[in-house]
Amino acid sequence: MSGYTPIRILPGEGIEILDQTLLPHEERYLRLGTVAEVAEAIRSLRVRGAPLLGVTGASGMAIAGEERGAGAAALAEAATELKATRPTAVDLGATIDEALAAAEGAARQDQRRAVLWEFAERALTRQRERDTALARHGRELPGLEGAVLTHCNTGGLATGGAGTALAVIAEAWRAGRIERCFATETRPLLQGARLTMWELGALGIPGTLLPDTAAASLIASGAVSAVITGADRIVANGDGANKVGTYGLAAVAARHGVPFYLVAPISTFDANTPSGEAIPIEFRGDGEVGGFGDERWSPDGGGAYNPAFDVTPAELIAGIVTETGVLRPPYGPAIAALTARNG
Amino acid sequence: MSGYTPIRILPGEGIEILDQTLLPHEERYLRLGTVAEVAEAIRSLRVRGAPLLGVTGASGMAIAGEERGAGAAALAEAATELKATRPTAVDLGATIDEALAAAEGAARQDQRRAVLWEFAERALTRQRERDTALARHGRELPGLEGAVLTHCNTGGLATGGAGTALAVIAEAWRAGRIERCFATETRPLLQGARLTMWELGALGIPGTLLPDTAAASLIASGAVSAVITGADRIVANGDGANKVGTYGLAAVAARHGVPFYLVAPISTFDANTPSGEAIPIEFRGDGEVGGFGDERWSPDGGGAYNPAFDVTPAELIAGIVTETGVLRPPYGPAIAALTARNG
Repeated sequence: MSGYTPIRILPGEGIEILDQTLLPHEERYLRLGTVAEVAEAIRSLRVRGAPLLGVTGASGMAIAGEERGAGAAALAEAATELKATRPTAVDLGATIDEALAAAEGAARQDQRRAVLWEFAERALTRQRERDTALARHGRELPGLEGAVLTHCNTGGLATGGAGTALAVIAEAWRAGRIERCFATETRPLLQGARLTMWELGALGIPGTLLPDTAAASLIASGAVSAVITGADRIVANGDGANKVGTYGLAAVAARHGVPFYLVAPISTFDANTPSGEAIPIEFRGDGEVGGFGDERWSPDGGGAYNPAFDVTPAELIAGIVTETGVLRPPYGPAIAALTARNG
Repeated sequence: MSGYTPIRILPGEGIEILDQTLLPHEERYLRLGTVAEVAEAIRSLRVRGAPLLGVTGASGMAIAGEERGAGAAALAEAATELKATRPTAVDLGATIDEALAAAEGAARQDQRRAVLWEFAERALTRQRERDTALARHGRELPGLEGAVLTHCNTGGLATGGAGTALAVIAEAWRAGRIERCFATETRPLLQGARLTMWELGALGIPGTLLPDTAAASLIASGAVSAVITGADRIVANGDGANKVGTYGLAAVAARHGVPFYLVAPISTFDANTPSGEAIPIEFRGDGEVGGFGDERWSPDGGGAYNPAFDVTPAELIAGIVTETGVLRPPYGPAIAALTARNG
């Protein structure tokens, strides 16, 4: 990646995060030193992306140790607060639980604080290694040539490393397989317009932006050789939750025989949930619809339907790229084996 | 409809149009008295909606008669200018040609001017009668109950009468069949957020706005009993061009067994074009993507893919509502009979 990182861990002090709500117009880093500040930054999407939320959650636990003392009750309370910020993303809760477990291995509070900072740093390093492995496994996927379409933001801004789907795209581009990346705007929060186009520019990959409404006709036109996105939660049968809008892309891609891929680290898998219907979907505020930032386009007072995620059924997914290889249908046995191996 | 009309014809002088780019925040009427002003208003989408463009085009011809004299060469030149503003919408060109034909029936220029104004007024009256007939035929459609989903704007603002798809929705709501209308934002120009939500409010129909990205999961959730939109051009085999994003809605509706309907006056049919691949699709400027109005969300310099329309194949369309009744598949013979009868 280029000269930016979405998170910097400052052991004993706090973290600095790139405020992603201000991109692409302004690159401002925020110093966060309390659990409340971390929770606010997650809830307001200043940090976002499932893997980066895991690292941020782990860092939030280390901050809790400094701010509130590293007693078991204080840490458990902080964990509950941090997990409640984004209920759908599995990485956040899982990494916080890992931090808690690591802290429990130390007896004294000063040792626990040190363990929590070490764990936060390890979570970030581990994410970087995972991204590199994901990209290597994904770059040879069938159909990853010519032009690909992606949704939302899955680059380094979403993970702290090279990214997930965008890391695969970047590797395939470096290998000369891909010439262009189409990016949806990704309403309502416009992560594609604001973040993916910014990252494509930073990586030097030719990017073309489209309204979410234009994706179906773009796919129908034959201009897209593959659709590839990240995922926020993949359950036991291979159904995958990702940014709202993903399911529609997968459904149209299937109609036209265009492969649809998910790219997700193993931490995204949740083998305890049998199928997509059981995935809890976060609904966000009405104010995000009918406007953006301070701009309002719609009349006041109308209600809104604003789920943050949707679920793509396994039957529409041609492959799932993980850091240990590419899963192919049928996903049930592959996911059971993967999570048993890494559980 | 309530106390607004998108166009007022002022014979001998010009027209007043409601500037739809300023809605819902401001209701400003613009007086247009030259062909160039009419062309600019069409090109900038101050007036929009296929049927209203027909009325506006006819009015533009009457204005040409006043401004440039009603000689054959001057009128032909004005017709070419006005038709070039929006190449995909068939009503615009067809109604302009009707105005030209009407004017040719009169010998003297003052007679021609009068004929052109009379034709413009007749085009508006005819549209109002059509809308009423469309709504009556459509209100009993199977699935038009509970909650429906629509896209873009198809109310009175789009036609000058009661509208097309939104007129059907309003009639079904008055009949107690529909309780709610879901409206997509409709990127990039946000006609759903700006105009449909405004019209639903004016009609007293409960409306819920959603990002275009959320439509697929809304349909998958079972909350939508039918998807119903307008159309900009329907060709011989029943393929229909409409606002970009329509095709994706139709494809997802079909996956879930939810009926998808088009509502379109007979003037929208083009039996001379065999199928959807032959429909010319207007591409609009990059500046509409990655921002709205003066706001920019995406980095400068990236390219954009910005078609104004997409094509829904006939196989995804459960019925097409016209002012003489509802067409059902197979559409080929029905459209041939319809256009032969009204040609």
